[in-house]
Amino acid sequence: MLVVMKGDATPEQIDAVCDAIRAMGYQPAPMPGAQRTAIGLVGNEGPVDGSAIGAMNGVAQIIYVSKQFKQVSREWRNENSLVTIAPGVTFGGKTVPIIAGPCSVESEAQILASAHGVKKAGAAALRGGAFKPRSSPYSFQGLGKKGLELMRLAQQETGLALVSEAMDEAGAEMVAKYCDCIQIGARNMQNYSLLKAIGKIGKPVLLKRGIAATITEFLLSAEYLLAEGNTNVILCERGIRSWDTLVRNTFDLSAIPVVHKLSHLPIVADPSHGTGVREFVPPMARAAVACGADGLIIEVHPTPDKAFSDGAQSLRLEQFADLVPELRAIAGAIQRRIE
Amino acid sequence: MLVVMKGDATPEQIDAVCDAIRAMGYQPAPMPGAQRTAIGLVGNEGPVDGSAIGAMNGVAQIIYVSKQFKQVSREWRNENSLVTIAPGVTFGGKTVPIIAGPCSVESEAQILASAHGVKKAGAAALRGGAFKPRSSPYSFQGLGKKGLELMRLAQQETGLALVSEAMDEAGAEMVAKYCDCIQIGARNMQNYSLLKAIGKIGKPVLLKRGIAATITEFLLSAEYLLAEGNTNVILCERGIRSWDTLVRNTFDLSAIPVVHKLSHLPIVADPSHGTGVREFVPPMARAAVACGADGLIIEVHPTPDKAFSDGAQSLRLEQFADLVPELRAIAGAIQRRIE
Amino acid sequence: MLVVMKGDATPEQIDAVCDAIRAMGYQPAPMPGAQRTAIGLVGNEGPVDGSAIGAMNGVAQIIYVSKQFKQVSREWRNENSLVTIAPGVTFGGKTVPIIAGPCSVESEAQILASAHGVKKAGAAALRGGAFKPRSSPYSFQGLGKKGLELMRLAQQETGLALVSEAMDEAGAEMVAKYCDCIQIGARNMQNYSLLKAIGKIGKPVLLKRGIAATITEFLLSAEYLLAEGNTNVILCERGIRSWDTLVRNTFDLSAIPVVHKLSHLPIVADPSHGTGVREFVPPMARAAVACGADGLIIEVHPTPDKAFSDGAQSLRLEQFADLVPELRAIAGAIQRRIE
Amino acid sequence: MLVVMKGDATPEQIDAVCDAIRAMGYQPAPMPGAQRTAIGLVGNEGPVDGSAIGAMNGVAQIIYVSKQFKQVSREWRNENSLVTIAPGVTFGGKTVPIIAGPCSVESEAQILASAHGVKKAGAAALRGGAFKPRSSPYSFQGLGKKGLELMRLAQQETGLALVSEAMDEAGAEMVAKYCDCIQIGARNMQNYSLLKAIGKIGKPVLLKRGIAATITEFLLSAEYLLAEGNTNVILCERGIRSWDTLVRNTFDLSAIPVVHKLSHLPIVADPSHGTGVREFVPPMARAAVACGADGLIIEVHPTPDKAFSDGAQSLRLEQFADLVPELRAIAGAIQRRIE
Repeated sequence: MLVVMKGDATPEQIDAVCDAIRAMGYQPAPMPGAQRTAIGLVGNEGPVDGSAIGAMNGVAQIIYVSKQFKQVSREWRNENSLVTIAPGVTFGGKTVPIIAGPCSVESEAQILASAHGVKKAGAAALRGGAFKPRSSPYSFQGLGKKGLELMRLAQQETGLALVSEAMDEAGAEMVAKYCDCIQIGARNMQNYSLLKAIGKIGKPVLLKRGIAATITEFLLSAEYLLAEGNTNVILCERGIRSWDTLVRNTFDLSAIPVVHKLSHLPIVADPSHGTGVREFVPPMARAAVACGADGLIIEVHPTPDKAFSDGAQSLRLEQFADLVPELRAIAGAIQRRIE
Repeated sequence: MLVVMKGDATPEQIDAVCDAIRAMGYQPAPMPGAQRTAIGLVGNEGPVDGSAIGAMNGVAQIIYVSKQFKQVSREWRNENSLVTIAPGVTFGGKTVPIIAGPCSVESEAQILASAHGVKKAGAAALRGGAFKPRSSPYSFQGLGKKGLELMRLAQQETGLALVSEAMDEAGAEMVAKYCDCIQIGARNMQNYSLLKAIGKIGKPVLLKRGIAATITEFLLSAEYLLAEGNTNVILCERGIRSWDTLVRNTFDLSAIPVVHKLSHLPIVADPSHGTGVREFVPPMARAAVACGADGLIIEVHPTPDKAFSDGAQSLRLEQFADLVPELRAIAGAIQRRIE
Repeated sequence: MLVVMKGDATPEQIDAVCDAIRAMGYQPAPMPGAQRTAIGLVGNEGPVDGSAIGAMNGVAQIIYVSKQFKQVSREWRNENSLVTIAPGVTFGGKTVPIIAGPCSVESEAQILASAHGVKKAGAAALRGGAFKPRSSPYSFQGLGKKGLELMRLAQQETGLALVSEAMDEAGAEMVAKYCDCIQIGARNMQNYSLLKAIGKIGKPVLLKRGIAATITEFLLSAEYLLAEGNTNVILCERGIRSWDTLVRNTFDLSAIPVVHKLSHLPIVADPSHGTGVREFVPPMARAAVACGADGLIIEVHPTPDKAFSDGAQSLRLEQFADLVPELRAIAGAIQRRIE
Repeated sequence: MLVVMKGDATPEQIDAVCDAIRAMGYQPAPMPGAQRTAIGLVGNEGPVDGSAIGAMNGVAQIIYVSKQFKQVSREWRNENSLVTIAPGVTFGGKTVPIIAGPCSVESEAQILASAHGVKKAGAAALRGGAFKPRSSPYSFQGLGKKGLELMRLAQQETGLALVSEAMDEAGAEMVAKYCDCIQIGARNMQNYSLLKAIGKIGKPVLLKRGIAATITEFLLSAEYLLAEGNTNVILCERGIRSWDTLVRNTFDLSAIPVVHKLSHLPIVADPSHGTGVREFVPPMARAAVACGADGLIIEVHPTPDKAFSDGAQSLRLEQFADLVPELRAIAGAIQRRIE
């Protein structure tokens, strides 16, 4: 249930509604907007009778949210949410920031070369995995804390914002200490214990869509983060499982406008995992910008043939440098921009 | 097997290679290119020993085509094929023609309003179904010949090229008589009897990808058309079946660069069936152009709420008119153009 | 709309209702049942007002069929339909007939060895393709009429009923002449022109589920056959497309109880295409019988390693002979039987 | 790499091979079998040169394991693994134990009624969730420790073995304290941190297949458990995501014989989640036994209409009591038994 206040409702009226919601046994979640405040009601599973509140002073309207998700929905908040992970790096507005870098942090030389290369080409943030979810227990699992320290070093040299994945609560706290944004990988999209733990940490989160998740399930997982009080959530489309073996995943770009319709949260696109094949990354990155993605996350490696993981889908530095101007032109064509 | 001739090979040398292929029991298929001629070998199922031909005068190289498809492949023909369905309406080159119109031809007033509207907005061709494949035998099945006559009337008034679907051999001959391009629908992508019959007719064909077809199966179905001697084939990505119910299909745009890699045939995109939801058509049409689609096919209806079929995914005329300039800007950003 | 007559309704009352339906502009389709007659109404697309008929003598109830399919539905006919393709070979009752044989008819020796082998092991009918739908135009396309003649020869020697696939109208007429049951393959499940043509022929039909068809679409395709007056329709689950490459298809056995719930038509299972791997055929054939399949269709070949098609999924004759007693035991455990 | 020792190899020879493997920098994992011992090599990612070991005394053969998984594979251990979760409750042998009970533990009355009912009908173990992974953060999340205490009470009254799900490390330790088998849910199949933690605990594990996991990924997740030294792993097929909305999931029963081919681990089937619809559970439970499932896990609730979760797919107690004799008859038909 959502209580929409009148444009001229006073703070006292808003407080009174919040008190009334608490008296019903739920939590109020006030959401100030440009024109008026809405107050969400958290903690109810089923329908709630809001008729008493509807009669209170300053209340314009009661909206019964029929969808399963609430705080992530456009009904809850009509304006786009802007999620800033570092000064000047904001998702959800006119600019379309690019997060680029290697799949895994492998060495100081590798991450520094990556960082300088993508910075020069126009990236706003650096990606790099220190904790790697791998299908096989015998595959490279990441450098852990050492990897995060190398990310920090790369930040000091380039000023890039940092994004890195966490796979459990202890790892999330470590990533939060070193980086600007915690990534939750596709395999953990429905790891609710992790979602709750990261929601409590409060750092900006990049939540990837699970490989077979519906958009509704995707938004419900984001709801877990918001329900813990963390509204700085960036969604990420990264391809879904399909039957064609010519690509690694089926890049479901229509998820971009679908999410924009249903939710106020920004959504970025990952054409590297979305296709899994280097030469398909540039056209699909262009397509992602064209259909409204609020950012991109692209795997770039100085020497993809020697990468510990995901080499086949990583762009070379010079390919990335060639791609950014194309993306800028596409962004310009739809009145957005890439810095 | 493909015999690549040297750039300065003489006509006599080419003829001699063709004779040698015939002597082996196969059909030669010479393909003159800008720089050199290649000669394909048709009629073999398994591997062929081409060593004797490799030693002939004028032969540069023997390429053993390992993929299941041949005449549709880039190995067979390296340059993009240009498919012209009417004067000035060519797919596969720099321009990106738009085919627009209603799902079904419903009445003279409806098809004329559609044709004038899309023509004015910038479409190059008119779509409109006279024979409709419907899941239910009790749904509207199309106006048949009467529908084709109305299409022709619309052409006389506007000059638009005509594209319409055929579902069987008799229908194909009728569509060929009235229209410029025969559409084979997704449900008939593996109706091999129809593919053979339409291949023999020789008119340009728009072949839609089946709802669960791999790209390889899609190209093999096109191969049926080329194997009958019809090289004027335009492929069409129109969405594949997936599990999310917020869209009608999952629009698999990465099929565009994948097909461009594997085949010389042009491929257009159908964001109307690709999403099934009117408001998602404009962003996905933009994305299709951005990733390199050689054309678009879009459902447009003067009064979608009263459409006999597919009303929910049809753009209104004014929405289509607003969309074309956006598409033009995107095309311009990647050095292509929409007339 | 379905008019359910009282148990003691007279033939005159039934005729009067039929006349009334005709007067409304529709076709009546009387369905005599063990306890009472129901009269379906054919030819309406949208809802019909049946209140006048509801007041006629002998009418027990008017049922408004909300589902898209009608004549195939349990509401239309509550008792299982029995489909007899040859004397003693009936699908939908207590017995579970087995159709077995090679993918393609290849030679006289091959089809006769197959027929004698499967007959001896307990099969009731012989399968064998004379017209083969192949993904590649360069693959073996079947022996055509010659193949059907060889099937007939095998029948003369063994007495087995014959099932063979048709891909177009001309082929269907030829199959109807030589065989007891016309198979419509998965790729043609939504080839509506073929469905209409075969519906008119009137021979028993085995309709295979398309590779990505929902059960609703599957039943709607069967509805095309019944709408032409052909009620002798056997459905067939043969696996759907999925992402795992260890099997050729995902054998969706829950389609068996789902179809039994929604429709009165019998449904058989094809574990050969359902798995695509010889060693998985016996366990999945057992599973199909256990969950209620009304028959099985299994690929068996005297020398699978030399088969022109589908060798990898064909049982050897001795494997089939070992399987039948297992299937008999499973059938017995659920009060059904295999002759 | 797998070192297969001769049947008469001495303990000293086996020790010498283990020492040699350690000297190469890897861990040896000796696997005594009925006829001979095999020694696996753990810790290598890429290929290993085993030629030196091949020349040692007592060594019969070196097998290079090409598949990504090792300890779970049939090459690693040819005989079926027997996993005993409580005295008399063993998976992987001739008997087919049934785990039954409600989705969630809701109250003392509910779990006791469930336990007594399923025990009487023939179940060997009780299922019941104390920690529930729910798509929505606002749905019932389980009773936690209180739920586990109620499970224990039910065990004291009935003697049933206990199976319950854990979602994180702390929960796993609690489940391990109260129950006989820790369930890892489908959503956590690739939660590698959880797999590692539960692998270390050492209790028997029931690992459910992810909703879009290939069999290879499923086995690799089991490999995470075995790599931590826990070999008491029971796999569980519970349906995969598909497009048909008439069932909740597509129950992929061919996973049973596929896993039996590739792995020595037992695999059970969950027809409740596999179909999501109560009336489809009995036929699909029968099918699962018929194709070789090593056990079943079935949702049963004394009053499904009042269940907090999964009521629509839960059998009533009397339905479960009717089902068990059917399953016994099917098991008997394939020389297995249900106690």
